[in-house]
Amino acid sequence: MEFYLAQALPVLERTPVVLRTLLADLPSEWTDANEGPDTWSPFDVVGHLIQGERTDWIPRARIILEEGRSRAFEPFDRFAQFRDSEGKSLGDLLDAFERLRAESLATLRGWRLTDAHLALEGEHPAFGAVTLRQLLATWTAHDVSHVAQISRVMAKQYRDAVGPWRAYLPIMDR
Amino acid sequence: MEFYLAQALPVLERTPVVLRTLLADLPSEWTDANEGPDTWSPFDVVGHLIQGERTDWIPRARIILEEGRSRAFEPFDRFAQFRDSEGKSLGDLLDAFERLRAESLATLRGWRLTDAHLALEGEHPAFGAVTLRQLLATWTAHDVSHVAQISRVMAKQYRDAVGPWRAYLPIMDR
Repeated sequence: MEFYLAQALPVLERTPVVLRTLLADLPSEWTDANEGPDTWSPFDVVGHLIQGERTDWIPRARIILEEGRSRAFEPFDRFAQFRDSEGKSLGDLLDAFERLRAESLATLRGWRLTDAHLALEGEHPAFGAVTLRQLLATWTAHDVSHVAQISRVMAKQYRDAVGPWRAYLPIMDR
Repeated sequence: MEFYLAQALPVLERTPVVLRTLLADLPSEWTDANEGPDTWSPFDVVGHLIQGERTDWIPRARIILEEGRSRAFEPFDRFAQFRDSEGKSLGDLLDAFERLRAESLATLRGWRLTDAHLALEGEHPAFGAVTLRQLLATWTAHDVSHVAQISRVMAKQYRDAVGPWRAYLPIMDR
């Protein structure tokens, strides 16, 4: 599937509501559970998505638009959420993510990006040249990949409870 | 995590709304796409969940409650949705799933299940003895595993569009 902004936008718009629908006010047994040592809970993932709004997607898009490859992106901190989410409730994080995502999309729409903009390049610290189109496709895929992760983490909590049905649920051992 | 009905119910209740939020009115490039030959699109998965409401979860729970192990469950038809979803829109399927799930949960709540009920056994055609508790845990895990599947299928549509970021998105090659 090729990337078209008009097709990606409805996905990007929905993620905060999807996460709220999936997680808000659920028992913490679901939202604080993870897949084992050094893996993330749904709570951790929402914190990670907040970091993305703050430091990754729109900031990097802006660098591409304003400075092109002359300024490499800051490396993204995959662990910042463990510090920043401290003392917050999942409800706080869902609210913050919704607000930040709405701001991000308002900025994105305000740019009125053309195909020529989408072809502009930036400098990724590990990959070198990347296009704005690739960055926005990654933002979208990253959203749904984390919805998949959260749902997988939840499914795994019943790995033992399902008894013999585990054999029919490959997600349990993924 | 042990199975407690009170913890599973809010997950079972939300699935129709989660799917609606994730999928309703999205461009069909997202909802009709799959992971390759003999894999399912989001549209197919919603049809499969409808089959589960009709022929799997509550019907099997009822057999356990009324007949115990004396009557084996009917094998579940994993392909019935390809026939039954024909000619329907995704909106039709989301509406049907929401209605059927609400009916299922009304039935489930009406049973006022105790721990003694949850320990009752049924006869699975492949596994032999299974408990009502295991069936209900499987229902719940099955829901979130299919939310994970749908999100994964969506993420994969941008496998090429993300360019070099594919290296950071293991879901693309899962």
